[in-house]
Amino acid sequence: MSDNGDKAAIGLIGLGTMGSALALNIADNGYKIAVTNRTVSRVAEFTRDAGDLAKNLVGCDDIASFVASLETPRAIILMVPAGQAFDDQIEALKPFLDQGDTIIDAGNTNFHDTRRRDAALAAEGFRFIGMGVSGGEEGARFGPSIMVGGPVESFTPIEPIIMAIAAKYQGDPCAAHLGPDGAGHFVKTVHNGIEYADMQLIAEVWGILRDGQGKSAAEAGALFDRWNEGDLKSYLVEITGKALGSVDAETGKAMVDIILDRAGQKGTGRWTVIEALGLGQSASTIEAAVGARSWSAVKDVREAGAEILKVTPEGGASVSEEDLAEALLAARILAYAQGFDILTAASETYKWDLDMARVAEIWRAGCIIRSALLDDISAAFRGDMPKGRLILAPAFAKRLIAGSAALRRVVASAAMNGQPTPAFSAALAYFDTMRQARGTTDLVQAQRDFFGAHGFERVDQPGAHHGPWAMNPK
Amino acid sequence: MSDNGDKAAIGLIGLGTMGSALALNIADNGYKIAVTNRTVSRVAEFTRDAGDLAKNLVGCDDIASFVASLETPRAIILMVPAGQAFDDQIEALKPFLDQGDTIIDAGNTNFHDTRRRDAALAAEGFRFIGMGVSGGEEGARFGPSIMVGGPVESFTPIEPIIMAIAAKYQGDPCAAHLGPDGAGHFVKTVHNGIEYADMQLIAEVWGILRDGQGKSAAEAGALFDRWNEGDLKSYLVEITGKALGSVDAETGKAMVDIILDRAGQKGTGRWTVIEALGLGQSASTIEAAVGARSWSAVKDVREAGAEILKVTPEGGASVSEEDLAEALLAARILAYAQGFDILTAASETYKWDLDMARVAEIWRAGCIIRSALLDDISAAFRGDMPKGRLILAPAFAKRLIAGSAALRRVVASAAMNGQPTPAFSAALAYFDTMRQARGTTDLVQAQRDFFGAHGFERVDQPGAHHGPWAMNPK
Repeated sequence: MSDNGDKAAIGLIGLGTMGSALALNIADNGYKIAVTNRTVSRVAEFTRDAGDLAKNLVGCDDIASFVASLETPRAIILMVPAGQAFDDQIEALKPFLDQGDTIIDAGNTNFHDTRRRDAALAAEGFRFIGMGVSGGEEGARFGPSIMVGGPVESFTPIEPIIMAIAAKYQGDPCAAHLGPDGAGHFVKTVHNGIEYADMQLIAEVWGILRDGQGKSAAEAGALFDRWNEGDLKSYLVEITGKALGSVDAETGKAMVDIILDRAGQKGTGRWTVIEALGLGQSASTIEAAVGARSWSAVKDVREAGAEILKVTPEGGASVSEEDLAEALLAARILAYAQGFDILTAASETYKWDLDMARVAEIWRAGCIIRSALLDDISAAFRGDMPKGRLILAPAFAKRLIAGSAALRRVVASAAMNGQPTPAFSAALAYFDTMRQARGTTDLVQAQRDFFGAHGFERVDQPGAHHGPWAMNPK
Repeated sequence: MSDNGDKAAIGLIGLGTMGSALALNIADNGYKIAVTNRTVSRVAEFTRDAGDLAKNLVGCDDIASFVASLETPRAIILMVPAGQAFDDQIEALKPFLDQGDTIIDAGNTNFHDTRRRDAALAAEGFRFIGMGVSGGEEGARFGPSIMVGGPVESFTPIEPIIMAIAAKYQGDPCAAHLGPDGAGHFVKTVHNGIEYADMQLIAEVWGILRDGQGKSAAEAGALFDRWNEGDLKSYLVEITGKALGSVDAETGKAMVDIILDRAGQKGTGRWTVIEALGLGQSASTIEAAVGARSWSAVKDVREAGAEILKVTPEGGASVSEEDLAEALLAARILAYAQGFDILTAASETYKWDLDMARVAEIWRAGCIIRSALLDDISAAFRGDMPKGRLILAPAFAKRLIAGSAALRRVVASAAMNGQPTPAFSAALAYFDTMRQARGTTDLVQAQRDFFGAHGFERVDQPGAHHGPWAMNPK
């Protein structure tokens, strides 16, 4: 930043949970930060509760003093609700800004909105950065994973701050400028989509353990604890073990057994599926996770279904704990692979030139899906990768080949025993489809030509062709 | 219509494949129809080729004479490409129209566009109808299924024409005014989504027969021919039998084996999945079908995958032809059920008051998914239907219970043998999820509260709660 004497290096509007944590993180790293909030009383409360860090906080009661307290060119983080409120805040801010000042959206914003705002603000001489921040409140306070999109010249001045507050993986900051306009928010969206899939796969394992093998939550939790020592080591497996092992103080029962099986969701999971479709991809494991949450909402239907659709499943072989672990790892790799397929397609479509290895690297710490696996994924993207597909990279092909037998047994066993495994099944279907040099859409093409004269390609000559049915009166 | 002497009862702009077929159908039913086309030479060609039907055609070389030739209030069908071209055509037409005239969009339009146009034209005193037409060229010419959305007072004058040209199921016209604004186009979109799922399920059966059981196309075709005599009787099974039995004149080989396994798609399949997500539903079997088409496009990846991901599947029990037939019927019912779940959610969201029984009825003939099953679905919606869910209606619950064993064996066998069955798997997962009074999203809620303090509901008391992990420093 230019030398502005006592001015704050950066500003932040919106002292909610995430905004407060991020502001304290910045202050904690020795940067002076100006803060303000729509409800003004929150500003004094925030600086009062900040303890020693208050020395780096400049609490401001209005936009004018807030903007005046910032070094120029200014960098202002907005942590306000998405949608109209966000656009309103930009409009309120603009009259106080100078050309070249940068507004930073650190929320979970749909990247289409980020692209729109980037273009609109650029046309007015302002700059806009869409910055995905993962890691929850704890991450925001002590080190999140940060995915930055926007004009690189606006990022350069704040880069030292972002690198300082980010999580570190063996000293490497988990933050990067990934590309222009919506690149950061898009990568964050796909991160969240993968998170949905990972959580759903774990939940399906829990279902098999509980409903198929009669395991208690504590027993299942101990298994996840053990898995977290091996190839499955990851934040989500770690907290699963802890959560399953937790006891409800009120009832003395396993906490998870007291929780209503009705899951909420915000937009990012479904955004990932929707964007995948628009890009000609399929995020089927993520769709399975989003769908499972949607179906969880209609508990009354499921309760009626349990009564009306009483079947005695065929029964089939049970699966070993080793099979479950290997299947979980294989399916997790396949879910990640689908996520990276989407990123690759989006990078081409929007000309972001995303560095996939770097994306994997900045997910290695700070974020919810952090795991050792991401280090391997990063290495795979830096190495030989046939067709740019993670599943074809030597190290991952080897793992998938090894794990696929267990994955088959888990899907087959669950199918026979009546336990739903939408995400495991979707992962296996993706794997087996991608192993088929000759698929079955030959028949789909025949059908389409039969009823709609859509035409098809032939295996032995170029051009569009029709089947013999087209010549016959139907 | 009012008595306008020699004027045409209705007009049509756009003499492409579908527009021409629809115009001839109208003329064939004794209604005088005015037609015009952007490329004017097409008008004379069309009327010349119409033979006896030319007496009911009024060919017009420009918009002014076209509009002047119509009875008032006017009803004008547009069959022009979707998107900007469509809006341009409306703008070109408007100066010639009077208040109360009706523009009818008979294309495959996204219902959001239909809602937008309905509102915009209504504000200017015009009327707009979004009309889904299914059945391909043959259907348009000799009797399609017609799904109408828009102001009912605009539909009433043209209702006799629409009923006359529609397909008939035992004398009942397969056409109906389903609701206001986008209702017709939305129902058509879901129809197409179900069509995608049905085609994919059939393709998966073909894969099991060909790759798992070594059946030739002719043998598989004979099987579908036989199935078309029983519970699976439907247009898609019928044409599948014919297509698989067809021989390529050039090579003498089975036609399907010469067709490149790379399937095209238009927007409606993915629209269904996207709208389902937006409505808090999951169209997972339709997503599987859309995804399979997307994956078919990357044949080079699949060819590389066949080399690199060489695995010898475990092997598992083969399935009988009876199992395949029963599984196909069960999965088809589940795909339809997901489609109706989406329609129910949309009807509530957009206040369309859709009559689901009538929707099923107008799909019984004329359209691509026509089958005897739709008669049963209609009856189910008119009868006792717990929670408004097709899978819980007595007749369908009974079928699903009976068919689920075969469905399990097909999914398990394909998983063990390495044949991809994304749609079958998705259908089974939906079924088994809806039979679970207690699901596994309890764990998902625990995870979300653990890392994001999202809170959860308890089974034993109201309100939002947090787990014991929230109290412990992490």
